[in-house]
Amino acid sequence: MNKAPSFVPQERGPSDHDVRTQIVEAATEHFSHFGYEKTTVSDLAKAIGFSKAYIYKFFGSKQAIGEVICSGCLTTMMTAVGEAISDAPTASERLRRMFRALVKAGSDLFFHDRKLYDIAAAAASGPWPSVQAYEEHIKQLITEIIVEGRDSGEFERKTPLDETANAIYLVMRPYVNPLLLQHSLDLAAEAATRLSGLVLRSLAP
Amino acid sequence: MNKAPSFVPQERGPSDHDVRTQIVEAATEHFSHFGYEKTTVSDLAKAIGFSKAYIYKFFGSKQAIGEVICSGCLTTMMTAVGEAISDAPTASERLRRMFRALVKAGSDLFFHDRKLYDIAAAAASGPWPSVQAYEEHIKQLITEIIVEGRDSGEFERKTPLDETANAIYLVMRPYVNPLLLQHSLDLAAEAATRLSGLVLRSLAP
Repeated sequence: MNKAPSFVPQERGPSDHDVRTQIVEAATEHFSHFGYEKTTVSDLAKAIGFSKAYIYKFFGSKQAIGEVICSGCLTTMMTAVGEAISDAPTASERLRRMFRALVKAGSDLFFHDRKLYDIAAAAASGPWPSVQAYEEHIKQLITEIIVEGRDSGEFERKTPLDETANAIYLVMRPYVNPLLLQHSLDLAAEAATRLSGLVLRSLAP
Repeated sequence: MNKAPSFVPQERGPSDHDVRTQIVEAATEHFSHFGYEKTTVSDLAKAIGFSKAYIYKFFGSKQAIGEVICSGCLTTMMTAVGEAISDAPTASERLRRMFRALVKAGSDLFFHDRKLYDIAAAAASGPWPSVQAYEEHIKQLITEIIVEGRDSGEFERKTPLDETANAIYLVMRPYVNPLLLQHSLDLAAEAATRLSGLVLRSLAP
């Protein structure tokens, strides 16, 4: 359950790894300076010295390039969460660590590098497939932790599993979704503790 | 406990009710068209036909005018919440109705009239005193409901009262704060139900 998935979208056109990497790196640089929303594929082409048509051989749209950058961030975040929870001794502790790690990873990645924030915002607004996959992965992790805690007798078993998992996901969502997290940064660390406590009380058998 | 408080800030200068009302009405109209952020007190003065100095006799700043508009909205919202919970038969039901009414009042007031949204956003970003008073009032309502439920034996009494109240406030916050609610409108109604369920499970004795 702790293996972080890759959210990299399907490739298009010639699978020339180096060219793709070159485009993504240049785009990351360009987006950081001028913002994702304001940058066009033409701007990127000019900056890299490629033709627009050549870029379109590798990526179907600007969003497809943004998706690769976004996917990289999300994979890093899920790896951090996976590592944080891997050796938790109980399901309760796993849930606590998961919440804390999500808040930390989100704050670190998106807000220590404010310049990439508008890619995150665009991705969450869409929502882009990478973000949907990320949210599904978090829901899946929550479900696995609940099942583990039910099996070990730590958690109650009366409430339907999906109802419990969805409700817990809703509690975590404001600290996972960057559009929401930006308005909660100053209280996020305390919220992770307080809300974990509330969620664990709700799971008591 | 169900009396909605008034969040109207202190008046300044001559307490000529009609002139104040006239300024607030003109400002509401002006903000609706041009946005709160983009409007200056000079713009307002020109639009109403008053001198800037005359407006400053009644309001110390643009924010002071915005506060009156914002306070009016918040008072309406708290009245709606107060009415929704007044005849609830149990503390559990009162909590459920409070959550539902907060979501409904927030959605109705701020999002059916999108034009006034940027006052709400400015007020929540500040946060303005009216918003802080509103949040305190909600925390107070939550505390009263918990005490009621503890007294009647519906809720557990082990967790410190303020810890329980703060955690429940954090669960509700994304649906109360307009900066957050704007990103949760499509799932707000279902969230109110699901999260009330989770919170009530966490309160079980």
